[in-house]
Amino acid sequence: MKVRVFVSLKSGVLDPQGRAVHHALEGLGFTGVEDVRVGRLIELDVADSTSDEALDEMCRKLLANMVIENYRIEKVA
Amino acid sequence: MKVRVFVSLKSGVLDPQGRAVHHALEGLGFTGVEDVRVGRLIELDVADSTSDEALDEMCRKLLANMVIENYRIEKVA
Repeated sequence: MKVRVFVSLKSGVLDPQGRAVHHALEGLGFTGVEDVRVGRLIELDVADSTSDEALDEMCRKLLANMVIENYRIEKVA
Repeated sequence: MKVRVFVSLKSGVLDPQGRAVHHALEGLGFTGVEDVRVGRLIELDVADSTSDEALDEMCRKLLANMVIENYRIEKVA
């Protein structure tokens, strides 16, 4: 089973990487960019028997830092 | 307009970060994890007038390394 986990910074948390990307886009001449946030996309290939609870626990224990990040789990197939 | 860009390593490209996460999940006792790949999720807030071509160019010029990475653009709203 393919699972995608999207990890993004909670709103209000400073994102220096996003700021750098924003600045770089402007430097390249792209206009109209108002905000950039950079997160992680983790693609897991897990056994079909893996429960939702186990996936949730993986996120909480390792994949996301729950203090500053949110995560969303999407099952692909 | 909110736009999400998903950047992931092309298949065949070694992913040491994914391997480390895989190893750590096993170390934490999670079984059944077969593969882990780590990519980036970039959330952009751009002007509604931004063209698809401009978004594509941003990805090619800055957000993704076209030699080793693929990208996918998703417009949210």
